[in-house]
Amino acid sequence: MRYELYYWPSIQGRGEFVRLALEDAGADYVDVARRPKGMAAMMRFMESSAIERPPFAPPFLKAGKLVIAQTANILFYLGPRLDLVPKSEPSRLWAHQLQLTIADWVAEAHDTHHPISGSLYYEDQKAEAKRRAADFTAERMPKFFDYFEGILKRNRKGSEYILGKQISYVDLSLFQMIEGLRYAFPRAMGRLESEYPRSVALHDRVGARSRLASYLSSPRRIPFNQEGIFRHYSELDG
Amino acid sequence: MRYELYYWPSIQGRGEFVRLALEDAGADYVDVARRPKGMAAMMRFMESSAIERPPFAPPFLKAGKLVIAQTANILFYLGPRLDLVPKSEPSRLWAHQLQLTIADWVAEAHDTHHPISGSLYYEDQKAEAKRRAADFTAERMPKFFDYFEGILKRNRKGSEYILGKQISYVDLSLFQMIEGLRYAFPRAMGRLESEYPRSVALHDRVGARSRLASYLSSPRRIPFNQEGIFRHYSELDG
Repeated sequence: MRYELYYWPSIQGRGEFVRLALEDAGADYVDVARRPKGMAAMMRFMESSAIERPPFAPPFLKAGKLVIAQTANILFYLGPRLDLVPKSEPSRLWAHQLQLTIADWVAEAHDTHHPISGSLYYEDQKAEAKRRAADFTAERMPKFFDYFEGILKRNRKGSEYILGKQISYVDLSLFQMIEGLRYAFPRAMGRLESEYPRSVALHDRVGARSRLASYLSSPRRIPFNQEGIFRHYSELDG
Repeated sequence: MRYELYYWPSIQGRGEFVRLALEDAGADYVDVARRPKGMAAMMRFMESSAIERPPFAPPFLKAGKLVIAQTANILFYLGPRLDLVPKSEPSRLWAHQLQLTIADWVAEAHDTHHPISGSLYYEDQKAEAKRRAADFTAERMPKFFDYFEGILKRNRKGSEYILGKQISYVDLSLFQMIEGLRYAFPRAMGRLESEYPRSVALHDRVGARSRLASYLSSPRRIPFNQEGIFRHYSELDG
């Protein structure tokens, strides 16, 4: 199966959580909008009134006749197919629950620089962004890290990966979360990281995986930038 | 199977999306935290370090030995068991995709009154709330309604319900979304509703279902109030 991923071509954004799964698994996929005329193809698809089950927004994945949107839903679908989640229903639901919690965290990270509106410039909501980012770094980041660190700590199957011995797409997403937070909030992360040794070790373990490491050093990995979910504004990293 | 739902006992909130599914299906369930000492039981569970797969936040559902959190994940699990979604994988993924889009909408509705921090009072973020709510009512509400109305319009299986002829938990959630928005933003909804006749008709069709109607008029239905996701502040409903 050749998967077709549709996502904005110039940012990591939410699409990156899917890219990491496809890359780590060595899956056959096309990152459609990054190809010549691919962006037009994506927009045409999204605007077509002929599509009976349209996505609300990218990313979306075409898998044969299926079109699947919502990042966590795409990973739920891909998980067992890419051997990135155990096949039992309880494990799949648990992995998905964690992924949805990461999705909430991602949305909150985004809203630090756009607390008022996604259609206004950062500069037009900078005062509000400062307040929201202060709350995010002081309250929310520790709350989410406490949660994931706690799961790694109490996992009877070991704390190598979040579900135990085997890697899952949740580990890849937690890796990406830490990457993004380090880019956006280096000072806050500098203060916090030593309190979350298991999460940091998991990040390092994921980043050292051979297929993932070669992806990360390839031109396929779009660098973090000021258009994505994770953005670095020094004034937000108090 | 007697399901145990755990959620804050004094608000509709996110738990209501699960309650509606259980009620419409006539399922056997206990709303644990609304029972005597139930709140203490919920807090004890959440704080226990013995739980290997803890929820990040309510709602969560106990189904036998399973504990499932994240509203959309709970509905994904319950859907086929309550006959509130077709059993095929493509239909389940599609329903879940829509539910996740509703979850995003719910989070945005919440953030209209808490754009800076969930741990600050509304009064301490009122100026920011006014800006965010203005964007929400002018831009985001129409965008989400356009999307769902468009799906109802193009559905070849008919537009009685969002998946066609048969009701699904997504319809119940869309009903709840409209209920909540009418409570929170009556003026904005007054302006918008006539543009979305299919969504409004779906809302009415859902509300007229016998089990749901008797739930809605029972004391089990907690009234909307100023502690939940949907809150009415006149100054936010421009």
